[in-house]
Amino acid sequence: MKIYDFAAFPNPFRVRLALQEKGVTDVEFVSIDVPNGEHRSPEFAAKNPSASVPVLELDCGTCISECTAITEYLDHAYQSGPKLTGQTPKERAVIHMMQRRAEQYVMDAVGTYFHHATPGLGPKLETNQNPEWGERQKGNAITGMRYFNGVLGDNAFVAGDDFSMADITLFCGLAFADFAKIEIPSECSDLIAWRQRVAARPSVQALS
Amino acid sequence: MKIYDFAAFPNPFRVRLALQEKGVTDVEFVSIDVPNGEHRSPEFAAKNPSASVPVLELDCGTCISECTAITEYLDHAYQSGPKLTGQTPKERAVIHMMQRRAEQYVMDAVGTYFHHATPGLGPKLETNQNPEWGERQKGNAITGMRYFNGVLGDNAFVAGDDFSMADITLFCGLAFADFAKIEIPSECSDLIAWRQRVAARPSVQALS
Repeated sequence: MKIYDFAAFPNPFRVRLALQEKGVTDVEFVSIDVPNGEHRSPEFAAKNPSASVPVLELDCGTCISECTAITEYLDHAYQSGPKLTGQTPKERAVIHMMQRRAEQYVMDAVGTYFHHATPGLGPKLETNQNPEWGERQKGNAITGMRYFNGVLGDNAFVAGDDFSMADITLFCGLAFADFAKIEIPSECSDLIAWRQRVAARPSVQALS
Repeated sequence: MKIYDFAAFPNPFRVRLALQEKGVTDVEFVSIDVPNGEHRSPEFAAKNPSASVPVLELDCGTCISECTAITEYLDHAYQSGPKLTGQTPKERAVIHMMQRRAEQYVMDAVGTYFHHATPGLGPKLETNQNPEWGERQKGNAITGMRYFNGVLGDNAFVAGDDFSMADITLFCGLAFADFAKIEIPSECSDLIAWRQRVAARPSVQALS
């Protein structure tokens, strides 16, 4: 199978971490030149009309976009490594819920701030900015960090006792926040401690 | 188990349809008075910090928000009815991808238009409108309808040959579009024909 992505970017990082956690190595990476707009080409739009990376292309030619969908594929196609999407109905539900919160509260909020209220990917690509909307999302991202600090005061991981795709999403969202210069509030000590624990995982170390 | 929702609203409709499709009847519905802001009360925020309905409360007290997460629970906890989230790794991935596109391209785009560029739920609740952002999402919703018209020219259902949660999301998104007065472009005949087929399903009929 192939992964179309741009290595250093936040959403590609999510899938690369999932691959590491699952120990999946039979992947060919194809770099899409996002800073120069290759993700908006007709060729790439045929693979993903959302014009975003990453995309997983299966050997049969089916293209899967959206990190959650790609992670569902990897977690069910490969039995190795931790179960990233849960096992029981309740685990699956809590992981999907917390994954979506990590996406919405942090990853997507940071992304909207970055693309709308900072120079983002530059004037050639950021042609429809809405700075007021972007600035508001910066505040939402910080509120989201405080929320997850509370969650991680009660639980070892974002969705409970075990590492899951919800941790991957939040971890990559915080990396994006660093890049966009949104700081974690210093009082969020449980979030910061969790982040250090995740950063020490072999999967993250292998990508550093 | 309990479902906290507001019956006529778009996201509650998604879960009510999923319950009908699965034939699940052991549910107590608790109405949250969204038009009067009850979803923003501290009591409800303790169940769902996103301040949105629906929320599924399991008998153990765990609260699940996000329609995808609730559908994952129902689909795995109940073996009756169609498999809404797929069976094989590839089916699961395609359904999650198409579900997310239906959410992002239609349901959420319509929601943002409704809450930001129309009176929405009224001046007491819509205190942070961004009309320019809302109007842009109206255009995105129509682009999304055209995308799904293409998909449904090639496939019987949104994620392929079988009905799934992706169909539920798109169907409810179009109901929201009706409410927000965003019309399906008349040339989208495959989308309109699919919508008529879904509307004839016993699950939809039971809720009409």
